[in-house]
This record gives sequence, C-alpha cells and structure tokens, in this order.
Amino acid sequence: MNKPLRIGITGLGTVGCGAINILHKNAELIANRCGRSIEIVAVTAGNKNKKREADISGLKWVNSPLDMVSDNSIDVVVEAIGGSEGIARELVEKSLSAGKSVVTANKALIAHHGIGLAKLAEQHNAMLAFEAAVAGGIPVIKALRDGLAANRFTHIAGIINGTCNYILTRMQNEGLDLQVVMEEAGKLGYLEADPSFDIDGIDAAHKLSILTSLAFGCAPSLDKVYMEGIRGVSKYDIEFARELGYVVKLLGIASLSDEGILQRVHPALVPVSSPLANVNGSFNAIQIEGDAVGTVFLEGRGAGAGPTGSSVVADIMDIARGVAYKPFTLPVASLKAPKFASMDKLKCSYYLRLSVIDKPGVLADVTSIFRDAQISMRSVIQHSHNPGEVVQIVVTTHETQEASMQKAMDAIAKLATVKDKPYRIRIENV
Amino acid sequence: MNKPLRIGITGLGTVGCGAINILHKNAELIANRCGRSIEIVAVTAGNKNKKREADISGLKWVNSPLDMVSDNSIDVVVEAIGGSEGIARELVEKSLSAGKSVVTANKALIAHHGIGLAKLAEQHNAMLAFEAAVAGGIPVIKALRDGLAANRFTHIAGIINGTCNYILTRMQNEGLDLQVVMEEAGKLGYLEADPSFDIDGIDAAHKLSILTSLAFGCAPSLDKVYMEGIRGVSKYDIEFARELGYVVKLLGIASLSDEGILQRVHPALVPVSSPLANVNGSFNAIQIEGDAVGTVFLEGRGAGAGPTGSSVVADIMDIARGVAYKPFTLPVASLKAPKFASMDKLKCSYYLRLSVIDKPGVLADVTSIFRDAQISMRSVIQHSHNPGEVVQIVVTTHETQEASMQKAMDAIAKLATVKDKPYRIRIENV
Repeated sequence: MNKPLRIGITGLGTVGCGAINILHKNAELIANRCGRSIEIVAVTAGNKNKKREADISGLKWVNSPLDMVSDNSIDVVVEAIGGSEGIARELVEKSLSAGKSVVTANKALIAHHGIGLAKLAEQHNAMLAFEAAVAGGIPVIKALRDGLAANRFTHIAGIINGTCNYILTRMQNEGLDLQVVMEEAGKLGYLEADPSFDIDGIDAAHKLSILTSLAFGCAPSLDKVYMEGIRGVSKYDIEFARELGYVVKLLGIASLSDEGILQRVHPALVPVSSPLANVNGSFNAIQIEGDAVGTVFLEGRGAGAGPTGSSVVADIMDIARGVAYKPFTLPVASLKAPKFASMDKLKCSYYLRLSVIDKPGVLADVTSIFRDAQISMRSVIQHSHNPGEVVQIVVTTHETQEASMQKAMDAIAKLATVKDKPYRIRIENV
Repeated sequence: MNKPLRIGITGLGTVGCGAINILHKNAELIANRCGRSIEIVAVTAGNKNKKREADISGLKWVNSPLDMVSDNSIDVVVEAIGGSEGIARELVEKSLSAGKSVVTANKALIAHHGIGLAKLAEQHNAMLAFEAAVAGGIPVIKALRDGLAANRFTHIAGIINGTCNYILTRMQNEGLDLQVVMEEAGKLGYLEADPSFDIDGIDAAHKLSILTSLAFGCAPSLDKVYMEGIRGVSKYDIEFARELGYVVKLLGIASLSDEGILQRVHPALVPVSSPLANVNGSFNAIQIEGDAVGTVFLEGRGAGAGPTGSSVVADIMDIARGVAYKPFTLPVASLKAPKFASMDKLKCSYYLRLSVIDKPGVLADVTSIFRDAQISMRSVIQHSHNPGEVVQIVVTTHETQEASMQKAMDAIAKLATVKDKPYRIRIENV
C-alpha cells in the first residue's frame, strides 16, 4: 500500500468534526478504497478546550490555521472555518500557493473568490475541491463534472437551502405562519442569530452560482443571481397553492437559453407531482437537465455532520487516489464570460395574491389591468367571507413575461381597493 | 491540448449509436472538459448496411470487432454488443489483454464475468468501466465509487428494470391486467421477443449484483440473488395496494446485516410517500443508505440512446482525463468472499392475497394458521360480493420471518376453500 495521505483540519464545528468522525470510524474501509490510508496530522480551531462532537484527544493541535501551511508533513488542508473573507480565505490562498491541495465546504468563499483560488490551484498544481459546499451529502458537483459530463446542460433547479425548506415544510404541514416557525426554529438552534443569510436566499445564491459555473463553464457570478427569499410567503399562499395543486418551495434555478444564462433564487409554486414537491424538511434536491441524459434527480441531506463530512471525505479520497480535476472542470482560461439573460425577459406563469377590500368592481379593475398588459388569466380564487372584510384574492396567469407582470403588479398596487403590496410567486413546472 | 483519445465502437444498436451521437454533437464541449478530444477511429456491427440511429458515414468500418484489438491506433474499445458470452466476452477479454481500456454497457457480461475481466484489467493496466450497465443515465456506479465513497453502505433499494416499471405503472394508471399491458408493449416494440429476461427479474438481478459488489466490496454473486419477477402481480394487487396506501414496484434490494449480505429482486409494496413510489414509466431510481450521508436518492432514465450513451461517454471521458479506478473500486485481491444471508431469515411485513370460496369459516381457518405460525395480522380486507362467488381476501401482517410466512402460505394453500396459490408481496418501508 502507498504511503498515507496526510491532512490538516482547520475549523472543528459541524463540518470539521463530521469529517474527523468518518475518517476515524471508516478508516480501514477508506484506506482499502483509496489504496492508502488517510492520516489526520493536525487540527485547529478558535478554541482548543470547547466541547466538540468529535474526539480530538489523539490529534496534534496547532495554534493557528496558518501553521498548517508551513508544515511539510501536511499534504492537504481541510478548510472548515467558513466565511468568504478573513482567515478562511487567507488559509486557502496560502495553502494553494504552497502547493497544498485544499478541501472546503465554504460556499461563500468559492462563490466570491473561486476563480482566483482556482488560478492559484492551477499555478501550483494543487487540487481545490468543494463538493460539500453545495447540497451537503449529495454528490452533485461530481455528477456535473463526471457522471453527467457528456451532457450539454440546459436547466438546473434545486432545493439548496435546508433551513428554508424546513420552514416551508412546517408551514405546510402545520398551517403555521412564517414568523411562528422562525421563532421556534430559532429557539431550537436551527437558525443563525442573523437568519437573513438563509431566509433571504443569499446562501442558496452562493450555491447556485457554483452549480451554474460547473454546468455552463463560466466563472461563478453571484452578482448575476436574482435573489428573493421566503419572507413574503404567508400561510395563505401555502393554502392557496395546495388548492391549486402546488407546493411552495424556495428554488435555485439556472437555465441556458438564446437570451443567455439566467440565475434566480425565489419561492416557487411546484406541482405536487414533481419530485421537488416531495422534498421535505431539511432535505436538499437538485434536478438536472442534460441534452443526452434527460432529467436526473438527486436528493439527500443538505446539512449536518454526517452528510457534509461524507462530501469532505469523498474529496479527500479523490486526492488520495490521484484523481485530479480542475476546480471548475475547465481550466480557468477556458471559462467563458457568458451572456447573462435579464430577469425581465423571464417567461413563466404567475400566482398573485391580493388583499382587497371587498367592494364591487375590484375584480373588474384587476382584470382590466391584466387585459391592458396582455396577460391572460388562468384562474381566480376568492373564498366566501363577511362583507366589508379584507379578503384574499388569488389570480394565476398563463405564461407571460416578467416585465409585463411587474408592470401589472405596480398598477394593481395603486388601486384604492387593494391593501398591502400584491404578492407574486412564480409557477415552475419542474 | 493533449493528443486525442482514440476509440473503437463495436455494436451499433441503441447504446453504440447513442454514444456516437453524443460524441459528434458535443465534441467541442467534451474536448474542453477533458482537455483533449475523443476521436472515433473505427466502428463495426453485425450488418454494415442496416439503417441506424447514428450517422456513421464518416467513420471507418472494420469487419470484425476483433480487428479493433490488433489496431494500434485504438486506445479504448467500446463494447455495445451485449450478451454474457460469445463475441462480446471474447472482445472484452482480448482488448484488456492487449492493454486497451474497455467501456461497456453489458450488465450480463459484468455480472457473470466481471471479476475475471477486472483481473485482466489490473494485469494489463487497463480500465474496465461499466456505468451504463446499471440504471442507464443515472451515475450510480460513480456515486458509490466516488461521491459517497466515505460511507459504509448498509442498504440499497432500486427500481432498476424500466420495462417492469413501465408495465406496473400502466397497470396502476389504467387498471389493466399484466397480460394486456405486456401484449401492447410487445406490439409497440418495448418488449424483447422473449420478455423473460426483464419480466422474471433476471436483468434486475444482473444489475443488483453489480451494485452489491461496489457497495459491499465483494465479487458480483448472481447466484446469490433471490429472484422473483412480476408475472404474479394482478390488477387486484395494484388496487388493494392503493387501498392500503402502497404502490407495487419491482425492487432490487441489497442489504448488509449481521446475518450477511442479502440480495433480492421481487415485487414490493412501497408506501405512496416514498420517493420510489413516484418513479414512473421507464424511469429508474436508486435509494442508497450510507452510515455518514444517510439516505441519498437518485432518479433518471434507465434506458434509451441518450441516457445510456451519456453514461458510456462519461466513462470514456474518465479515461481521457486519466481518472483511473479499479473496476470494482477495490483491487480484485481485496474483494471479500462475503457471508450471504439466507432469504429464509428475512424479516418483513407481508401482503397476502387469497382467492377463496366464500364459505363461513374460511377466515377462521386462515387466522388459526397465522396464529399457529405466530404471525401477527395487521389488517384484513374483503370487499362485498355475491354469495358463493370466488372472492379476493387480502391479509397484511406485522413483521415476521420469511420462513414462517412461507410455512403459513403452504398451509393456507392446502385449505379446501382456497382457490389458486396464495400470492404474497413483501412490504418494504423504503
């Protein structure tokens, strides 16, 4: 058997401890599969004495992540610190510059600085691997890079933020409003202190930009992601969606058309018959369309020590086996600066919920705005209620252009009988 | 860019033509992703002048597959002939012996002779790749080998025969009986002249034995697969299953327990809420349980030119990129001769359908047989009918052992009031 691959692990939270536990528990199995063992040479984190989910008593502790860079006994640095800047970025840059391969679960770092880091990796003949950065334990990066590599990809749609999916699933199953679920999730420690990163779609946008890059052969372009979180979703929307045969999901979607690449993260109405509609709780899933393979659907746990650790260790095993890939499949110099499509040009069907004061004529006003915008309505739902009360009206449309819909929404918002801003959810027939 | 990888393609049916079409259509994309182009140097098949799904007019025709072996301009031989013996086997053996890598979609060949071929590949430093042999376009072999490689696998359950799934789906959607769907499918050319290979579970057993090998690190052991096809499934079963909250699917299941490895192919009642229950038509899907990652679910097209071609070309691209793996992940010498569990020891819940002459006391007889076998019943369904008619009674049980269930079934079959053999379907809570 070949000599061991020696790794250093920085950051001992969920991801770092998850990887350590797998490397300990499945050491023999992993060594057999790689033809060599994987040896944890050193670990470090912010606080040495914190209680952790992994047993690090037998492992060498170093004082700073950067100590790993200068340690010649370390072949691979695992960055599980997190954050797009600061020590995580410095560590990855310096490790690659020193010719050490890096395995990371850090989507923010890759989304923001992936190309610069990939260049460093190429220059210094090192690997930069980040399977755990997208969709936890689902090997979606490897699927795009290897298993489905013969395909021209046209469409990717995924549930790639487990926190939002957990919240939407509970709203759906228990008829709760967003705020209630968020408060409970906060108490249970499922939410970050500032939940904006998850709830507003930022985390999903990071992941989507990485998937886009791999699928379409371009640099991750986070600033080209249309981003709309789940704060506007109410229990009414979940109920109306159900009545219409849909489920509300936060989707990340990247598609390629003659207009260019369009990346978007937003809540969507997904048909109940879609595999994506049945992805519940903190599970993630990705639906990939390739020109040869058709539709491939991958589902699994999007977070947690086991799933992210599984992906981190798989990347380490690639390196141990001498499997070498460019971080974004193509050499950096071959990545295209693609044309990006404008969100205004998106064509889809829409769900629109209006809170109206029930006066005769309000529906006539709304329909005449749609008519003027040449938007064709598909259905209207209004439930019985007491006269004079605020009532929810839901309109769905046939396929129309985002820009037309936006204009119609603006006009509807100005109607005196319409309370609050109209709330729109795009209907995705994934 | 590096020099092209030169391949020869033998067999120009669905798989061979699928691969050629992708290599032509996506040539530039594939070359970019591999860092070198892939060049089809020669093709051959049984009949040169047959009308085909791919344009081979620009390709060199050789008269015999074996001509590829002696052709020094060929690096990789694609075997798309099929069959576990004859020319396919000879071609693969001779190609590997000549140090040429082989890509094949031939599950029968790999299930029967995989280990011998893997030995040849090792001896001659060649690759033997067969992603397309299992579940068409779904990259499940790569997932087990790479993306989920950090896991100790415990359970794999899949819908891995598209023909059976197509038949069961039509029975389910249209209330048809098996024979009717089979006749129609035959007329449409969806069925082989001898459909036994699909219908009796042989094809699924081939694929399962390959998955088992990769997941559990042993040689494919086709003779250790319990095999029961779908011929016994009636429209009554589909209807009763629906009433009970289940769908009937032909599953391939491999599991690891203290008793050893158990491989089985048989119809199963799958809960409607399971992702497997919603895999319809000719789609395939595989649910994988790993100790770290938890459950991962992969779904896609199990057959057809595009999907199988996608997997064949992905394997060719691995070779072009210099990604080298042992065919069964582990070196042949490290593959274990595992303990296999006996089917008798299987524990599960059962669905049992009896055709009985409705005389008072028949249910008392059945329940007393169950009591004597210490099998606990969960539910009984008997619909209203006219006195004296043959009636279908369905009994479901709590978890019990296969051997006990078999004994009870034998005793029930002997009751004078029971017409036909009782029909049993295992209930799988996948």
